[in-house]
Order: sequence, then structure tokens, then C-alpha cells
Amino acid sequence: MENFEYCTPTRVLFGKGQVEELPARLAAYGKKVLLTYGGGSIRKIGLYDKVKKLLDGFEIYELSGIEPNPKLQSVEEGAKMCKEKGVEVVLAVGGGSVLDCSKAICAAACYDGQAWDLITGKVPTKKALPLVTVLTLSATGSEYDWGAVISKPDTNDKVGYLDGHLFPALSILDPEYTYTVSARQTAAGAADIMNHVIEQYFTAPNNYLADKICESLLKTVIRYAPKAIGDPNDYEARAQLMWASSLGCNGIAGLGNRYSGWPCHAIEHALSGYYDITHGVGLAIVTPRWMRHILSEKTLERFVNYAQNVWGIEVNGKDGFAVANEAIEKTYAYFVSLGLPMTLKEVGIGSERLGEMAHHIAVNEGLENAWSPLTEKDILQILQECL
Amino acid sequence: MENFEYCTPTRVLFGKGQVEELPARLAAYGKKVLLTYGGGSIRKIGLYDKVKKLLDGFEIYELSGIEPNPKLQSVEEGAKMCKEKGVEVVLAVGGGSVLDCSKAICAAACYDGQAWDLITGKVPTKKALPLVTVLTLSATGSEYDWGAVISKPDTNDKVGYLDGHLFPALSILDPEYTYTVSARQTAAGAADIMNHVIEQYFTAPNNYLADKICESLLKTVIRYAPKAIGDPNDYEARAQLMWASSLGCNGIAGLGNRYSGWPCHAIEHALSGYYDITHGVGLAIVTPRWMRHILSEKTLERFVNYAQNVWGIEVNGKDGFAVANEAIEKTYAYFVSLGLPMTLKEVGIGSERLGEMAHHIAVNEGLENAWSPLTEKDILQILQECL
Repeated sequence: MENFEYCTPTRVLFGKGQVEELPARLAAYGKKVLLTYGGGSIRKIGLYDKVKKLLDGFEIYELSGIEPNPKLQSVEEGAKMCKEKGVEVVLAVGGGSVLDCSKAICAAACYDGQAWDLITGKVPTKKALPLVTVLTLSATGSEYDWGAVISKPDTNDKVGYLDGHLFPALSILDPEYTYTVSARQTAAGAADIMNHVIEQYFTAPNNYLADKICESLLKTVIRYAPKAIGDPNDYEARAQLMWASSLGCNGIAGLGNRYSGWPCHAIEHALSGYYDITHGVGLAIVTPRWMRHILSEKTLERFVNYAQNVWGIEVNGKDGFAVANEAIEKTYAYFVSLGLPMTLKEVGIGSERLGEMAHHIAVNEGLENAWSPLTEKDILQILQECL
Repeated sequence: MENFEYCTPTRVLFGKGQVEELPARLAAYGKKVLLTYGGGSIRKIGLYDKVKKLLDGFEIYELSGIEPNPKLQSVEEGAKMCKEKGVEVVLAVGGGSVLDCSKAICAAACYDGQAWDLITGKVPTKKALPLVTVLTLSATGSEYDWGAVISKPDTNDKVGYLDGHLFPALSILDPEYTYTVSARQTAAGAADIMNHVIEQYFTAPNNYLADKICESLLKTVIRYAPKAIGDPNDYEARAQLMWASSLGCNGIAGLGNRYSGWPCHAIEHALSGYYDITHGVGLAIVTPRWMRHILSEKTLERFVNYAQNVWGIEVNGKDGFAVANEAIEKTYAYFVSLGLPMTLKEVGIGSERLGEMAHHIAVNEGLENAWSPLTEKDILQILQECL
């Protein structure tokens, strides 16, 4: 095991009806609230009205319309509102994009300069407003981690902003709020969770307990995503996906493993930075191609482990590469079975800008230091395989 | 999945040499420190001198001689020192007993009445001094949880004190400090960790992800305890046991499962409350007898799951009870293989007070509401099986 430092101070309230706790819990942080949300799905499921009713007596300001792959502009707008109105706590109701944007708002509200300087780490984050979240999509794990991914469309940048001040103070996780998530978004969320775990699992040095926890999360998603898609109101399936999403991205699964470089995320961030596609879909497309590309004598052991313990592939007496390729094919076939588009063409991306993206990734993402290092040429080949 | 609330705010510094961080981290809480430790093993391994040297410039008071199954008297003594000296932070260096005692000291130092009233929950805990720990034994998980078990010898009480104020602020976990732990104590620690997980696993309703995480922890301990006993300086083995101990008892393994009643702990607390035996040894003795006693049509599914996923027992085409009994025998044989005494006689306990203990447990532990309910008669039978 490698050395590590770990702390996830977020409090979780998980399960049916936990939103009823909101008034009492929120009041601990203040009465002046910025309520943030997305395109209106929380209105459709009645959650907007529910929250507004519960928070009768609070002074509520609203920032709505936060988009998928949230943009710097929304962060700046939210931070400005917080400063002008003296907001004491931000309440984010939505999926990972709303939560990520709100995390950056919490930090930018306590800083007098440019929000982008905080997001890019040019200046250190010293303070942030407390954030309370009500989650409506199982995918990014933002509800239980210290990260926010923010896009800056004019430069095609999509930056991962990591800071200890960004942990939500409280996250309310009621799986019922994901009943109306579409099959496509449920599948994309499942691919997102799985890839978070894969990024922690495919590395060296690794360790046994981390392996087992990563495999636990992968098997849980593999088992329950089809159930949630088949019966959107299957509480147990929605609950398993939701808690797997929370444990998938806050680091606890891979503690003691070396940082892998998160190569699929590095590549996907260019795809959704340039083309604004759904992050989980991009990850589903990239992951099996990345796996095929890096499979080698050096990486073989990880793939055999993955084949045996995640997919239940019999390995005894078989050629390691055959086993590894079978596991990669199973990964691909699983994403297909969830109904995910598995080529860039299907999501409207052609070959025109692959070279530009490969260059952008090679320059910005440090993948030459990844567990299985990638040059610009490697990255371009992986992107071409995704077409 | 059942609803749950969860938060573990403790910061963990894990790995070789992390104690070097102590001065900088401790200073955040203050300069007046109560250093607590046990019988002197930290002197033998040089940790006492190391800590004293690192904390040059701090104002250090010492409470040494904290005993296994820590007693109320030590809590009172430590709390008195904190009050008299104006201690700002407690630094506990040792195993679970030192940590548990120190947690209670932190709370009692902020309360003007009787410490026992806090410990028994007669009065609510409203405040506690910050606690920093340096762990030297992988067993109880106290370094990463909110519990402290305190004994009151004059009444044979051994009480579990659970409160959110008891989480350590920071725990430094360097597996090297467990190199000198004896084979017997290593084995007892392994049994302790395993039983913490078993108490979360054998219940209903349970859930898939919790099952997988519990199985991960059990398999990790089963794999690495013999390695640590065989080669006390095996860093990886010591590290796996240490992190498994931390994840084993703070609740994260069984989230969404119903509380089982922790029956083996309830029974063992009487054994070590009456006879001051090593907690992990008591658990190793009780666990397989409790398993045999509660095995029934109603509980069978859990045992088959345990057999298949923890011990790798082939279940297809076999009688469920045969599979379950094989798993129980494997559990027993595993503890034997670690060199643990597996009868009460071997630890100096005869039949004289079994009835008295069974009554004490039945009256105080609420096991009539356990997952598999136990009457006083059941408890007595289990104790008799342990002879």
C-alpha cells in the first residue's frame, strides 16, 4: 500500500423521505439561501415545490438553468448573487452538473478575483460557503467528493477543480428522485460510476483491499443498472446505484493505490469540452478503446484480475491475453446492452478535430505520467478507434 | 436498502513516516497536550521518544498505564488532568483501549458532572476536546469511529459509549508500529475486525453493496492475518490489516443494512467485563458458537451467502445447512489456525458465573430485538457451548 491522506467530512442522509430533514439541517448554516438547479426536471417531479414549501421562512434566491457540463458563466453569475444578497448557504438540487457548478459558486462567492483563477488553481481556495445538496441523478459522485468539473467554452477547456473546501456539508440522497431519470441517462450514469472505479483500479502499485472494494462497486453497478433501466421505479436498484455513485468517486475505493492519471477522464473531458456531449456517454465510448490500447505484458495482470473478479471469467489454463480481451469485450457489450451509443459518430463527432483534441489532451493532462503512459500519438489512436 | 445517516469526519494519515506530520497537525488544535498511552510498549518500540522529540515546544502532560478494557477510573483521572492543566488537545498513542479511554477523557474534560453519566448516555454529550491518535494495534477500529467501550469493574459493566463528538479529529496510521505486536495479539485483532464485519453482515434486511464490502473486508483479514503472524515485519500484511480495522467498525461496510443488535459483542462484553479477557479472543470464542446457535431456516440465506462469498465454498447442488455448517467450521478452524484459544476454559473462565452473565446480558443488551433474537436461555446455551 502507498501512503495516503483521506477525509470525507460530508454528512449523508440516505433514503426515502430524508428531504423532510432539510429545514432543520439547513437552518444550522443560515437563513439566506441560494437555491441552484438545472433545466426544470426538478419542477416536473414536484421536488421544486416540495423544497420551496419546506423552506417557507427562509430567504431564498434562485439560480436556475445550470446546464450539463456547467460553464464558468453560471459560476460567475451564482457567485455574484451570493455576494450581492449576502447568501449564507447554497442549496443545490439536481445532478452532478448542478452540484459541480454550485461547489465552484460556494468558493467564488468568498473570493474577490476571477473565479477561473480558483478553478484552475492559479490562486488557492481559502474559503467557501457551506453547500447542501439534494441529488437527482446517480453518476458523478459529486455529492460526496471534493471535485467540480467546470467548462470554459471559449477555450474548449474542461477543468477538474479539486479542493478540500468543496465537500458538501450535507447531501440528501433519496433514490426516489431518480425514478424519472431516462434509460439513456441512467445508462450514462452507470458508465460514469464504473469508469470512476476503473480509473482507481487500473494502476500499480495497487492493493488487495482496494481491489476488493473496487470490484464490489463495479459488480453492484453491473447488476443494478439493467434493473433500474428495466423498471425505473425499482427502489433497490436506484438505491444501489446511488450509493455506488457516492462511494465511486471520493477516493475511498482505491485508497493505498497509486494515482493512475485518470486517463479516460482526461480524454473524455476533451470530447465533452469540444462537443458538449454527455460525460458518461463519452466515458462509455472511450473506456473499452483505452483498455484495448494499453493491454500489454506490463498491464496484463490488472486485466486478468478484472476479468476474473468483476466479470467472473474463468482464467485457469487460459491464455492471459485471451482472458483480458474477453473482459474488454464484456465491458463493451455491457455498455451496448444498456443502450449506450458506442461510437463518436453516433454522438455527432467526426474525425475533423481529433488531432486538435489529441494535442489539447497531450499538452494539458499529463498522461505521459499515467500508469500506462500515453503520448499524443497514443491519444489520437484511441480517439480514432472511438469513431 | 434501509435509510441511514452517515458521517465520518476523521482525517486519516496512513503509511510509513506519517508521524512526522504530527507537530504541524497537532498545533492546529493547541499547544497544551495530554499524551495518553498504555503499559509501555510504545517506549519499547521507540515511539514514545519519537513523539516527545517531535513535540518539543509543546506543553505535554502524560497519562500512562491505561489498561486493556479501559476503566472508568482512568477516564476520570485523565479528565481531571485536562481540567486542571487547561489541556487543549488529547494525543492518544496506542491501541483501541488507549483510544477508547482517551475519547471518553475528551468528553469528560468538557463536562462538570460524573463521567459515567456521559458514558451511559444518562446525560447528553455536548462537547469534547479534539483527539489525535497514533495507532499501534489493528483491531478495534476506534481510530476511525465514534465509539468507546469503558468498563466499570465494581458493577461488571462494560458499556459502549457512542457519540458524534468522539470521532478523532486526526488518526495517524503507520503499519510499521504494529511490527512488534505479538502473534497472539495480532490474531485477537484479526478476530476483532472480522467480528465487527460479521455483526454488520448477519442481519436483514441487508443489501448487495454492503454484502460485497463486508465480504471484501473479511477476505482481506482472512488473507493477511496469517501473513502478519508468519512474518511480523510484512508491511503489506500489516497495512491491509490496519486499514481493514479502520473500515471495519465505523459503519461504512454495512450502510443500508438494518442494525443487527451486535449479539457477539453483547455477549463478549460480559465475558471481558467479568473476567478482563482480551476482547478479540472473547469474540473468536463466541462467534462460531453464536453462529451454530442461530442457524435456522430463517437465517440460512445469510450463512449460504457467507459460505460462498467469504470462504469460497461451492454451494450448487448442496444442502444449504451442510454449506452453512461448513462455513461455520471454517470460521472456527481459521481462528484455531491463528493460534487463538477457542474455549473459555483456556482463558480461565469456568461455568460458575455463566448464569449470572447470561442474566446480565439479557437484562442490559436488548438481544430480544436482535436480528436473530436471543433470550436469556439462548445466551446461557451459547455461553455453555463456549466452555
